[in-house]
Amino acid sequence: MLKKDKLLERRQNLRNALIAAAAETVASQGLHALRARPLADSVGCAVGMIYKAFADLDELILAVNERTLDALDLVLEKAGRQRDRPAGDAIESLARLALAYLDFAAESGQRWRALFEHRMENERPAPEWYAEKRRRMFRHVEAPLKTLLPELTGARRGQLARTLFSAVHGVVVLGLEEKLGSIPLPLLRQQLKTIVQAAARGLSRER
Amino acid sequence: MLKKDKLLERRQNLRNALIAAAAETVASQGLHALRARPLADSVGCAVGMIYKAFADLDELILAVNERTLDALDLVLEKAGRQRDRPAGDAIESLARLALAYLDFAAESGQRWRALFEHRMENERPAPEWYAEKRRRMFRHVEAPLKTLLPELTGARRGQLARTLFSAVHGVVVLGLEEKLGSIPLPLLRQQLKTIVQAAARGLSRER
Repeated sequence: MLKKDKLLERRQNLRNALIAAAAETVASQGLHALRARPLADSVGCAVGMIYKAFADLDELILAVNERTLDALDLVLEKAGRQRDRPAGDAIESLARLALAYLDFAAESGQRWRALFEHRMENERPAPEWYAEKRRRMFRHVEAPLKTLLPELTGARRGQLARTLFSAVHGVVVLGLEEKLGSIPLPLLRQQLKTIVQAAARGLSRER
Repeated sequence: MLKKDKLLERRQNLRNALIAAAAETVASQGLHALRARPLADSVGCAVGMIYKAFADLDELILAVNERTLDALDLVLEKAGRQRDRPAGDAIESLARLALAYLDFAAESGQRWRALFEHRMENERPAPEWYAEKRRRMFRHVEAPLKTLLPELTGARRGQLARTLFSAVHGVVVLGLEEKLGSIPLPLLRQQLKTIVQAAARGLSRER
């Protein structure tokens, strides 16, 4: 038993070292730069040990992305924290969440991008714990939507939160990348705020 | 001179054959599947001939994407064609454009995705003719915005058109991919319409 505990502890230590090293690579060079051999080299283990610590590279990448999602969750939690009861505040709350998401994306760069670039091998679906962690993110958007549109059912509110998040994500993705000619961050923040406030205002007046 | 014409004609024929073959590969397997050797095999030329017809693989991919952009431009042109003078119609026009974009993306799949996945080698910027063709797309969004918000300067209208397009793009991208659990197309269309109408309504009442 003692020996088994020791082995488990070692495996956990190796996992943590590999996650940290992989996160470092993703942050500095992007997800596509992640390769088993340099990764093993950087923590000083044999390549085969990676597959003793993780079922496959996907499991390692999900562990890296999990940390990014946790960091994002904290940022959104903080941005949404202010309690807003009047509808006007709910609109501000949605704008604040959108700006917090933009700032997180701008700061985290490649680590944030990895959340969207990662494809499971053989097109397997992501494991349920990970999908659930991703979905939980929408609760930050749902809270002000509940204030803004109290008559919506939970299902409709969930859909709307996802759609709003997707719209914000689009503005952030295309704004931060140079493809369409990059936008200075202050202008991008202002544009994002304008569109989110307009959408929230429009939604609240639909009734 | 005659010989030169003949050579130019042959080069053009080879270019067209390569573009068609590359478009086929992108459509069926995605941009990442594009490789010089199988491409040369499929049109029955030597690999080296690709680089006689095109400066590099980027130039070939841009030619494929150009065709996709032209097809999208036609679709948006048609969707935006209805003349709308009253502001209410401008809101409908924006919703129609968004839905036309969603339908185009859903139908074109990998060819549409290639527009956003392609990165120029060595992080060079895309050539000006291509960047211009991409920018021209926004005129379809600018037209109803001009009706809706006649007081905006051209520059502000251009920014807003880009932001609105980015928001729609985000809803389409995250809605069509399975990452967050895929949404049935009719529901996605309805969600997109709701959010675009809300944003347009909110923008028009900001004044």
